[in-house]
Amino acid sequence: MEKMIALTRGVPPTQSFATEKLQACVQTALKDYPEKILQYAKAAGFPPLREWVAERYKVDAGRVIIGTGSLCVLDHVLRSFPMGSLTVAIEEPTYDRTVTQLKRAQAKLIPCPIKKDGLDFTPLKEALARGEKLDFFYVVSDFQNPTGSLMPLTKREELVRLAREHGFRIIEDLPYRQLRYSGEPIPSCWEMAPDITLLMTSFSKLIAPGLRVGLMILPEELVAQTLKIAEDTYINSSYVDQAIVYEFCKRGWLEEQLDDLRKLYGHRRNVMAEAMAEELTGLCEWTVPDGGFFIGAFVNKPIKMDELLKLGKENGLQLTDGRGFYMQGGDQFVRLPFCALEDDEIKEGIKRLAKVLREYPG
Amino acid sequence: MEKMIALTRGVPPTQSFATEKLQACVQTALKDYPEKILQYAKAAGFPPLREWVAERYKVDAGRVIIGTGSLCVLDHVLRSFPMGSLTVAIEEPTYDRTVTQLKRAQAKLIPCPIKKDGLDFTPLKEALARGEKLDFFYVVSDFQNPTGSLMPLTKREELVRLAREHGFRIIEDLPYRQLRYSGEPIPSCWEMAPDITLLMTSFSKLIAPGLRVGLMILPEELVAQTLKIAEDTYINSSYVDQAIVYEFCKRGWLEEQLDDLRKLYGHRRNVMAEAMAEELTGLCEWTVPDGGFFIGAFVNKPIKMDELLKLGKENGLQLTDGRGFYMQGGDQFVRLPFCALEDDEIKEGIKRLAKVLREYPG
Repeated sequence: MEKMIALTRGVPPTQSFATEKLQACVQTALKDYPEKILQYAKAAGFPPLREWVAERYKVDAGRVIIGTGSLCVLDHVLRSFPMGSLTVAIEEPTYDRTVTQLKRAQAKLIPCPIKKDGLDFTPLKEALARGEKLDFFYVVSDFQNPTGSLMPLTKREELVRLAREHGFRIIEDLPYRQLRYSGEPIPSCWEMAPDITLLMTSFSKLIAPGLRVGLMILPEELVAQTLKIAEDTYINSSYVDQAIVYEFCKRGWLEEQLDDLRKLYGHRRNVMAEAMAEELTGLCEWTVPDGGFFIGAFVNKPIKMDELLKLGKENGLQLTDGRGFYMQGGDQFVRLPFCALEDDEIKEGIKRLAKVLREYPG
Repeated sequence: MEKMIALTRGVPPTQSFATEKLQACVQTALKDYPEKILQYAKAAGFPPLREWVAERYKVDAGRVIIGTGSLCVLDHVLRSFPMGSLTVAIEEPTYDRTVTQLKRAQAKLIPCPIKKDGLDFTPLKEALARGEKLDFFYVVSDFQNPTGSLMPLTKREELVRLAREHGFRIIEDLPYRQLRYSGEPIPSCWEMAPDITLLMTSFSKLIAPGLRVGLMILPEELVAQTLKIAEDTYINSSYVDQAIVYEFCKRGWLEEQLDDLRKLYGHRRNVMAEAMAEELTGLCEWTVPDGGFFIGAFVNKPIKMDELLKLGKENGLQLTDGRGFYMQGGDQFVRLPFCALEDDEIKEGIKRLAKVLREYPG
């Protein structure tokens, strides 16, 4: 059988890891300040990296919490509230791992659909009108996982306005913000309202996921309770990894790395966009994103996901179950990651998807 | 004022870190298999390290879960049960961080006192007689934190017998087991009953805490539910750190390191034991442990801990609040760590403690 093509997980390709630079970084760290990174330490993270982040984001370093990936820091935040006490609005579709964490916290979820013109706040407004007290709105506003969509400025402004009016906070997850391949950045919610926004970001997609270094910048009043949970969970996350990231950033290598990644991923996005235009026109709807890892395709036919996954496999194509990103439904949604595949694989993958969709009964 | 002596945290001294060896380990890992440690990975841990541990403990590698310290893996285990559903017996005094995690899980706690002849099971037996259904008994059976005590073999046998009879599991936390300076090892509960014991151990005290590499060996039926929690919390803990530990162990450097540590700590234990015999006889009761980091001292006078801590500070001595290791009481208990202090500091620290206790009113 022909080689299976994995149009599934959105991970950085191995070739993108700057292994030799990382070696230099860890050597420096272990040579110059072993006692600072090999001992038990504070849960908030390696102080020089906190300072570096703080300077970049123009905030007090006391608000920066670094952990075993940004997701883990979010988990600390959620656990710092009583179980079952939170009400959280989310985009639909959205990043599935966050939904899993929200469900573990027994949060009440209010999904708001992402439409052609961006996020539709109607379900949120209805809930607020019913007297619901919202705690957080979780958004991946830049090049969302899974759709690749960019939240329009007007929607960001509306979200901030709603948050101020109704006293809720925004959790803005921005792992892809610096991976923009075309167009100009638009202000993040965090930039517009840093006092009520919890910013999540990570070095996983920028340097290497295996270092497990992610972070959140929190409103000051949430820092102490979050650190308590972090310390009680793992005392601290590895400063060895955090020092590697710090040395990498300090040397200016992050900027070099970002340049390389933007070239690599920008090219792959173009290849996928071209292949989709050629193969999928009429079969799906999609928007070509200006950055990130994914193009979200909405299938025009009323398909069943189980059947699509099965047909995909029979045609040498692994697909992600779109329903995982939805509270309900998602059968029509296919997340197409262009980050980790070679040009040929992207083209062949899209060709196979088109074949499956054309042959899909109905 | 004279320099404050910190008779507080039990951490390995900086001088014990084999920095150059660690550098060699990370170089090999990043050179030979960067793609295996820099990518997202499975929550269970770096496979070669799991295999190494499995071989050492003669178990299937599938039962080994490596995480950001063993405490973090315990947290995953506890979270894999419904909140508030667990009943857990503990030693009193015991390791305070575990108690914090048990409280977060809203576990019902049954403290059993550590007495001169070892753990007293009376409260457990009473609870069982009342019809309580026990889930776990948490013990630090070798050179306990905080008392330094070694659970006698007869008590271990009784604990295993009770566990089998009443269908509960033992969580045996053994970070100090390999740090024995005199006498012969006695079988662990895990060795006697590996099917019903959850073994916790860690490389924090053996290589370096900052690597944050700890592990649990679980009964097979608990593995899947624990891994689900781990993955949903942080996808995986850093394989970079785990690969450093693996390379260190593979080269036989762990054995060398253990030899060095046993010499270092054995000597310090002797220095502290001698100083205590000289200074504290009549003021406290204690047993000199055969290993670990601590000597637990029980003050003969009826003191108040707040007052003792205050008097300590006035005399240039930082002490740990003994009440932190107890559910109730603990005013009479002082944990004395000998691991991180130089000989002179140990002698001077004990001298100051003796002065404070002699001068304590009453």
